[in-house]
Amino acid sequence: MNGHTVPSASSLQASGIQDAKTHLQSNPAIQDLDASKLTITRTTTLRPVPEPDSKEIWSVKACTDHMVMVKWTEDAGWHAPELKPYGPLTIMPTASCLHYATQCFEGMKVYRGYDGKLRLFRPDRNCARLVTSSLRVSLPPFDPVELEKILKAFLAVDGPRWLPKSRPGTFLYLRPAMIGNGEQLGVSPPSEVLLFILAVPWPDLSTSSPPGSPPKPPGLKLLASKDDTRAWPGGFGYTKVGANYGPSFGSQMEGRKRGYDQILWLLNNKQEHEVTEAGASNFFLVWKTREGRTEMVTAPLDSKVILDGVTRRSVLDLAKERLVEGSRYLAGEVGPVDVVERTLTMLEVEEAQREGRLVEAFVSGTAYFITPVSAINFKDEELDIPMGDGTSGHYAALLKQWLGDIMYGNVDHPWG
Amino acid sequence: MNGHTVPSASSLQASGIQDAKTHLQSNPAIQDLDASKLTITRTTTLRPVPEPDSKEIWSVKACTDHMVMVKWTEDAGWHAPELKPYGPLTIMPTASCLHYATQCFEGMKVYRGYDGKLRLFRPDRNCARLVTSSLRVSLPPFDPVELEKILKAFLAVDGPRWLPKSRPGTFLYLRPAMIGNGEQLGVSPPSEVLLFILAVPWPDLSTSSPPGSPPKPPGLKLLASKDDTRAWPGGFGYTKVGANYGPSFGSQMEGRKRGYDQILWLLNNKQEHEVTEAGASNFFLVWKTREGRTEMVTAPLDSKVILDGVTRRSVLDLAKERLVEGSRYLAGEVGPVDVVERTLTMLEVEEAQREGRLVEAFVSGTAYFITPVSAINFKDEELDIPMGDGTSGHYAALLKQWLGDIMYGNVDHPWG
Repeated sequence: MNGHTVPSASSLQASGIQDAKTHLQSNPAIQDLDASKLTITRTTTLRPVPEPDSKEIWSVKACTDHMVMVKWTEDAGWHAPELKPYGPLTIMPTASCLHYATQCFEGMKVYRGYDGKLRLFRPDRNCARLVTSSLRVSLPPFDPVELEKILKAFLAVDGPRWLPKSRPGTFLYLRPAMIGNGEQLGVSPPSEVLLFILAVPWPDLSTSSPPGSPPKPPGLKLLASKDDTRAWPGGFGYTKVGANYGPSFGSQMEGRKRGYDQILWLLNNKQEHEVTEAGASNFFLVWKTREGRTEMVTAPLDSKVILDGVTRRSVLDLAKERLVEGSRYLAGEVGPVDVVERTLTMLEVEEAQREGRLVEAFVSGTAYFITPVSAINFKDEELDIPMGDGTSGHYAALLKQWLGDIMYGNVDHPWG
Repeated sequence: MNGHTVPSASSLQASGIQDAKTHLQSNPAIQDLDASKLTITRTTTLRPVPEPDSKEIWSVKACTDHMVMVKWTEDAGWHAPELKPYGPLTIMPTASCLHYATQCFEGMKVYRGYDGKLRLFRPDRNCARLVTSSLRVSLPPFDPVELEKILKAFLAVDGPRWLPKSRPGTFLYLRPAMIGNGEQLGVSPPSEVLLFILAVPWPDLSTSSPPGSPPKPPGLKLLASKDDTRAWPGGFGYTKVGANYGPSFGSQMEGRKRGYDQILWLLNNKQEHEVTEAGASNFFLVWKTREGRTEMVTAPLDSKVILDGVTRRSVLDLAKERLVEGSRYLAGEVGPVDVVERTLTMLEVEEAQREGRLVEAFVSGTAYFITPVSAINFKDEELDIPMGDGTSGHYAALLKQWLGDIMYGNVDHPWG
């Protein structure tokens, strides 16, 4: 062959992180993110706090009084973070984030506990994942511990008024986001970046419907994707980059029009009709194997197609700890399960349904928390999914209870 | 099976277009895009026009004096287009385009001809493609003919000063873009949208290098992608949505660092190592078949993985018309070719190279125009690609000449 060997590069992402570190170490003018430099400018006009479950909350437009902004420039790195009154951004029409989707975000909640305390749920996971997402779209990394400190400083300012102690059991949604900024239209990584953090009153999608709309029957109805694919091996499905969302709205709207709550995203790769995610949540199935064991199955992370959900991971951890033979948590319908991360195809789900081996299914995520699934439409056939107590599967109900107790401080747990 | 049949929906995209049309027809308050409503506000401070091939042009930051903005709202449709001084946008931090990549764009050029005229090249194609891209990320459609009229009105204002008659053979890059706007952070299509058009002095990537950088050897060196995949069947590779770009920057930078100009994007789906696109351009290969015929091959559009490039289509059209047996354009090294749109794998390219059957390769696109390829790195082996006259393949040179003549008005042609 008329060719010569070129040295192989390590994986792009690992090399990106290493480059960033080397860049930081080799150039003392390049600053890492530093929470201790946060400046605070308080608003002089407080915004109205919406009532729980009000129309304003369902519109998802009302942010809290303040926001955090941190600028990054190629020559200086991360500038001093600023907490300031919530308001519009000034962005050049050539900015990278508007053309090339150089953007990523996180979604997390802060909970007002029944003990009166404000709690984040495993924020270290979200902060670290934002770095992973950032690198996937060539935005700069940062020390995730500093972001966590900034989040807490922000909540110290807006938490007391927006999550009053008089309303235990409520939450705010936190949205850290990063966008490629600057003036350069060239097709390359941006030389200026903005990290910002918003806090937004958000409806509880796992239990309530918008005011005025008919009450929802329990359980989500899922429409399995046909023509559209959300993510693929070698893509970016494992990250919270903007690029995973806009292109999925068409299927989502089509599903809604046909009476389905979410799309069940399938991947047609080597395994046909592989089940990946539901809407923007992870998907879990509980079934009996032919050998009679009970399995809790969710898609694996290794092909980087699905999001490494914080709720997903917490469900797996709790199930592995508490849903085992001899556990004090087992009772009644809730027996021990084998927790398995593996590829699952719709052909297997169909077969299990036909053979009466389905136990239940549910989705997990920050927005939908733990929500049971009542049906899946696959190739225009609707498969009913059992819900043990009529409104939820028993495992979903138990996991939701356990996680809720940690989030709202009913029990003491290192994740809270 | 415990299931019942649900009526099948037509393809999401076709149904989206139909919905939009029905929506427009059923509600007279919803306006389509209307170029006749354009208002013009001229700037009072003219911006400096950069010299051809200057540092300013290579920075790709300098826009012309004006821009066009058109707002769309869910309740009223398209508002009156405004031509106004170039300047920053005011965007709420919750805007859909910053979080969910609800954004798409077009890239096209306006040429100052040697006959003194300004010419767009097949603008109808770009305007129609923006509608396709827009629908793929749930942004609203519009009548593409109206967008073409607005582009021409914009050029009537900024063309004379930014592409002076004294500089025939130069061009400006036009960037129509659409972004999801408004205040709603909910994960659904935006209820407010902004279409804007910029005109940008852009370097000629097909012939020159940035000032001060070493002169580039002729021909692009391509690095075949390994871990990263640009697009997938059922994805959005066929559109110019932002989501196709940001996630590709990592591979692009890795390639640059290793001395390659662009990534040759491969797809590992059913066919292994399928060749799709090069960087943000389409890819063409000319080779001899084992039967001794000459073929010009490029990836097909049917799996919707590659962009339906305007230059790609023009190359195919010209080749099918002029590079056939008996054509008056054939001479010397340039014999007739069979023009084929079909799946091509790197294993076939490797084999043809080993057997000495490669004739040449080139990329086509608005930014790179027609640029020959000199080498492809596949799995750390560098394959040399012949360049017939030492600086370009004969077919690439001829096609570039033909297209340039149309763009700059050396010949009269319906595309100009």
